[in-house]
Amino acid sequence: MAGRLKLGMVGGGQGAFIGAVHRIAARLDDCFEVVAGALSSDPQRAQASAAEANLARSYADWREMARAESARDDGIDAVAIVTPNHLHAPVATAFLEAGIHVICDKPLAVSLAEGDALARLAREKRRLFALTHTYSGYPMVRHARELIEAGELGDLRVVQVEYAQDWLAEPIEQSGTNKQAVWRTDPKLSGPAGCLGDIGTHAYHLAGFITGMLPAALAADVHTFVPGRRLDDHVQAMLRYANGARGMLWASQVASGAENALRLRVYGTKAGIAFDQEEPNELWFTPLGGAAQRLTRGRVQGAAAAHATRVPPGHPEGYLEAFAQLYKDAALQIEALDAGRPLPPESRFLTTVDDGVAGLRFIDAMLASSAAGGQWREI
Amino acid sequence: MAGRLKLGMVGGGQGAFIGAVHRIAARLDDCFEVVAGALSSDPQRAQASAAEANLARSYADWREMARAESARDDGIDAVAIVTPNHLHAPVATAFLEAGIHVICDKPLAVSLAEGDALARLAREKRRLFALTHTYSGYPMVRHARELIEAGELGDLRVVQVEYAQDWLAEPIEQSGTNKQAVWRTDPKLSGPAGCLGDIGTHAYHLAGFITGMLPAALAADVHTFVPGRRLDDHVQAMLRYANGARGMLWASQVASGAENALRLRVYGTKAGIAFDQEEPNELWFTPLGGAAQRLTRGRVQGAAAAHATRVPPGHPEGYLEAFAQLYKDAALQIEALDAGRPLPPESRFLTTVDDGVAGLRFIDAMLASSAAGGQWREI
Amino acid sequence: MAGRLKLGMVGGGQGAFIGAVHRIAARLDDCFEVVAGALSSDPQRAQASAAEANLARSYADWREMARAESARDDGIDAVAIVTPNHLHAPVATAFLEAGIHVICDKPLAVSLAEGDALARLAREKRRLFALTHTYSGYPMVRHARELIEAGELGDLRVVQVEYAQDWLAEPIEQSGTNKQAVWRTDPKLSGPAGCLGDIGTHAYHLAGFITGMLPAALAADVHTFVPGRRLDDHVQAMLRYANGARGMLWASQVASGAENALRLRVYGTKAGIAFDQEEPNELWFTPLGGAAQRLTRGRVQGAAAAHATRVPPGHPEGYLEAFAQLYKDAALQIEALDAGRPLPPESRFLTTVDDGVAGLRFIDAMLASSAAGGQWREI
Amino acid sequence: MAGRLKLGMVGGGQGAFIGAVHRIAARLDDCFEVVAGALSSDPQRAQASAAEANLARSYADWREMARAESARDDGIDAVAIVTPNHLHAPVATAFLEAGIHVICDKPLAVSLAEGDALARLAREKRRLFALTHTYSGYPMVRHARELIEAGELGDLRVVQVEYAQDWLAEPIEQSGTNKQAVWRTDPKLSGPAGCLGDIGTHAYHLAGFITGMLPAALAADVHTFVPGRRLDDHVQAMLRYANGARGMLWASQVASGAENALRLRVYGTKAGIAFDQEEPNELWFTPLGGAAQRLTRGRVQGAAAAHATRVPPGHPEGYLEAFAQLYKDAALQIEALDAGRPLPPESRFLTTVDDGVAGLRFIDAMLASSAAGGQWREI
Repeated sequence: MAGRLKLGMVGGGQGAFIGAVHRIAARLDDCFEVVAGALSSDPQRAQASAAEANLARSYADWREMARAESARDDGIDAVAIVTPNHLHAPVATAFLEAGIHVICDKPLAVSLAEGDALARLAREKRRLFALTHTYSGYPMVRHARELIEAGELGDLRVVQVEYAQDWLAEPIEQSGTNKQAVWRTDPKLSGPAGCLGDIGTHAYHLAGFITGMLPAALAADVHTFVPGRRLDDHVQAMLRYANGARGMLWASQVASGAENALRLRVYGTKAGIAFDQEEPNELWFTPLGGAAQRLTRGRVQGAAAAHATRVPPGHPEGYLEAFAQLYKDAALQIEALDAGRPLPPESRFLTTVDDGVAGLRFIDAMLASSAAGGQWREI
Repeated sequence: MAGRLKLGMVGGGQGAFIGAVHRIAARLDDCFEVVAGALSSDPQRAQASAAEANLARSYADWREMARAESARDDGIDAVAIVTPNHLHAPVATAFLEAGIHVICDKPLAVSLAEGDALARLAREKRRLFALTHTYSGYPMVRHARELIEAGELGDLRVVQVEYAQDWLAEPIEQSGTNKQAVWRTDPKLSGPAGCLGDIGTHAYHLAGFITGMLPAALAADVHTFVPGRRLDDHVQAMLRYANGARGMLWASQVASGAENALRLRVYGTKAGIAFDQEEPNELWFTPLGGAAQRLTRGRVQGAAAAHATRVPPGHPEGYLEAFAQLYKDAALQIEALDAGRPLPPESRFLTTVDDGVAGLRFIDAMLASSAAGGQWREI
Repeated sequence: MAGRLKLGMVGGGQGAFIGAVHRIAARLDDCFEVVAGALSSDPQRAQASAAEANLARSYADWREMARAESARDDGIDAVAIVTPNHLHAPVATAFLEAGIHVICDKPLAVSLAEGDALARLAREKRRLFALTHTYSGYPMVRHARELIEAGELGDLRVVQVEYAQDWLAEPIEQSGTNKQAVWRTDPKLSGPAGCLGDIGTHAYHLAGFITGMLPAALAADVHTFVPGRRLDDHVQAMLRYANGARGMLWASQVASGAENALRLRVYGTKAGIAFDQEEPNELWFTPLGGAAQRLTRGRVQGAAAAHATRVPPGHPEGYLEAFAQLYKDAALQIEALDAGRPLPPESRFLTTVDDGVAGLRFIDAMLASSAAGGQWREI
Repeated sequence: MAGRLKLGMVGGGQGAFIGAVHRIAARLDDCFEVVAGALSSDPQRAQASAAEANLARSYADWREMARAESARDDGIDAVAIVTPNHLHAPVATAFLEAGIHVICDKPLAVSLAEGDALARLAREKRRLFALTHTYSGYPMVRHARELIEAGELGDLRVVQVEYAQDWLAEPIEQSGTNKQAVWRTDPKLSGPAGCLGDIGTHAYHLAGFITGMLPAALAADVHTFVPGRRLDDHVQAMLRYANGARGMLWASQVASGAENALRLRVYGTKAGIAFDQEEPNELWFTPLGGAAQRLTRGRVQGAAAAHATRVPPGHPEGYLEAFAQLYKDAALQIEALDAGRPLPPESRFLTTVDDGVAGLRFIDAMLASSAAGGQWREI
């Protein structure tokens, strides 16, 4: 690639978790430098956060930032949106209108209507709209997708996906000190889905990404365990696919002992695979009746894993590298879009605004099925 | 214990799998000697099988065996029933009527009515009726139950149980050479439940055994993947418990690559546990927010694990030892019953006919819910 | 096989560990019934132990037992010797002289001279002399040997074998209550090697069994960590093989946290394998530059694993089954010897008295090298 | 920290592996920007590599670079030396003489004399001299050291360290296409130690880093398996420590199937630990007689792990993050040195030039012991 792109950021000030992650990810492969930001709605905090992050330009307001940056010759090429969910759509709209590419945290928005509007706008403006479904940046996740595309599993029959954490097993939002917990359990900031929007959508996206298919229908049970909590903290569902495959999905933030246990298993007529996000350098592949094989990044043949790999096998890559991969693919696509070239094929796994819309449809179907006593619901 | 008890066997002739397993299990702890059998409905095969198994007395017919053995001074104390499912009830009835204790393979029977009748008869005759839910014989399974009884997990919130195999991923019953596959996919021999009765009931029992609670309701999807198969080969369900806990259960015999993957995870307000039948010498215990601990047979404190253990930690015990544990507990109970003494407390984990009835209720609810399009159904 | 053989036992009374293990192992595959014993040198204890073990005949003295049993028409076919090490040779000699087959615990004897004499005597008397190196009874250990025999690893280059325990990390022999600890740390009962004889010989045998080659030379460091202990509790050595291969061996009974961690890794020019006794149902096979494969008992092709397997893959077998395999192979060889037939090929993996002599040579070389400051010493 | 430091690089041009790794590591935590380089001895390649790496200034010669950069107001603060081993000392000397801080790949030099001179010079010039023993940057490695410092293992008894790879199992240096293989097997470029210098020193450093002690003596076997290879490709040694502890070390680049298997186990009187570089987010801690605990980055209490952690538990960090940690600590120390402040305590784990000298002493002792037929040799 020819030099670094310029990145701005909205949200992600001091005390936030994901902002710093985005900045590392953007920097890691030397595709972006972060030069501007509206890191906090509190102007003083915004200023201090920007200084700490070595940003050249700090804004007190993201609307002003969109305007100012689009007016500069050396303005940002893209903006990373890392605010609470309710701001994703307004901020993204402002930057798209200003002609600036968007890289946005998931879930895409707090309603399907918002999401559909964003998708339309991005298409109309011919700007990149990438959604950071981080886990699709892992080399072995992409290799799994390639295996399935190549027919190595045969016809898919069973999908088992789960995402378990324990950080919300107690009502930690009530003390107010954990900002993450506060906004993620507040419907005004998070939208109607708690655990469902935060990690359920990751599980849903991962299953869809790897299998190449989305369920046709689901039956859900959306539940809140912790007394006083205003959003769900545990969801589960059964899935049916158009080809007859069956699936199950669960996501929980009250699974005592679980750290960040996103796991997927897929079984086809010829073989099964298993991926565990906490061991991302390996993918298990087991032929029907055969021996399990531990496929590793760097030893498998395959363009997708090679494209997403920096160091040799046995030198573990992790979450930040997966995240960086999304930024690398975004940079490849931005350069192509800006040059009017077709998107480079090796960047094809980058999550799109349409994936974000699919996630919002999933949320809607889950909430509707559960509200209707678990009835099967088309997605 | 005072000497060996005498065991007879119905079913389990040449070519059968589970008969030989029962004989090893009965012998392993020196509680039983197998002395008589009606090992096959084919008289010649019965005779040859009995000779091969070093049995003193071979019968061509199980009705005759029940009669003859009850008439002998040195007749059998108990019978092991290892036939296809449709014979469990008639054979058990004959031996109970003859005053002989019964150790029976699961599922208990092919209908709830049959099962209820057996339970009544066993109670009336004051004979042992043990069901071989093998996996409840593992020391670490029993230790898990003790941990939950002791409140170490807090209030239970989430139950995840699964049982995956791949041996029926292809229509191997159609060639006729795999006898197991033939009878297990034939409703006349297996009853109305295929995978559901064969391994679904194991998963259901294990979850109930460890948690000490059965679900109040379920929503199911019972499915057959392999074309031409007459019984289900994949089942999945969502569960609700009276205390508000949520659960999921799946069992599949088409999960390519899976050998005998029975796994249970339970999460409470204080900790979570995980058990994997393929690694039975360990139990994972993880406190909320803490480090996972690998508890092992022989290093944990606890009467239940100690009672079910033969060799020191690091000397793996397996499936046959778990099975033998059921026979050991059965022997303890038979001696107590015959002597009119109360059942020994250390044998309290032995699976009962009532557990078998619970399994039949589960089968009924699964089939009914699935037939009704996945509606929630009380159990 | 045609009926059960009759087994006697010397040693293994109440409080002993390995005697009960031998009895289970002898019984498990229905090849032997244990009918007679001199279970303790204390006559009262011998009597009580025999009753508890359901033995038909109890002797207060093993010399008397050898005489009496050889005189009976229904006398024992074989004797299992499970005494402390110093009695292995005298007891074995007595029974061999009486024409009775011998199955003996390891190490074979307390000196090489004793061992050589036993080997000569067994040959002369044409009686079985099997040594219970249990770990060679595991199906996946035997499969590993077959893989290497078949050239699947190419030329062998590196052997890494280790056996770590922690049960002697503290001076528990000093209280006198742990009988195992008392005799195993007493040179009069154990011979000159402590940890070296108890588990070092297992590690040495396993490496030799699987690779099919014994080292030509070693350099050793034999050490005692626990103050006041009279025998070694930690040994380590470097190995050289005639083909140029290198190896390392260590065995420790003070490795805090280790249960029974016997592990072997072998690397050849084409592939490497790894076996862990605590996970005996699997063997890891990794081609040069390729993906690790988890080979499992029951899914691998191979006569050796099949011969040593009772239940399908995913139904774990363990230590007792490995032990039982030695008894099964012993029974096959006894029947052949008694009938004057050649030994059945499927029993060929049974450990012999010559293996025991090799173990004594290893002990001698280890002690000599260490005493000479770690000089390389031919074996 | 106040802004980014400026980094130069010598070596690491196109086709090199470790140069790109250093650049990512330097950038990851935003402590450095890479602005200048003499990336190759081939001027054209140097120029092209610098452009690809977005460097502001490219030099054809590292002597010229040292001169020019020290003369500039905005010259580099530090240089990263990523050349083959034989250039470490001359390049480092030039930059130290120019008053520029040095971050250097290991091994420090190709002889102990060179290393000693470097250590003296760095002290005299009061410049940082950090050695990139990457694996000491892992949070759980640092936590292990803290546990041992805090006495959680009791007195240390046994150290087992190993580093296995398979990339040199065949004579790949002979084709000339793998540049890594060519220079690493060439004594003129690598010095007298092959596998020993490349990965043996890593194993040695890791053991010393975690245990806080270096062996007093060793007995070694340094070997070359691959015909025609000019340096060792497999080394093994026994170790003795001043406190009586015993150890073993092996490193091999012909261990078929091994990727980058650096593993350490340490056993003390109270507990044992195990670390596997391929699973760097966890550390196993097992008390004597107790249950193994899986300690994870982010869930353990401890300043060292916290300082070296970027993302929450369950979000894996890897090799690049460990590498970045060395750069972060180097930045902290450079700022302190430049400001005349004491080194910040949280940076105390950074590898020093003295660690590099210790590594060279280890190489010398290994070669000398092996040449003398494996005699014990003081280090």
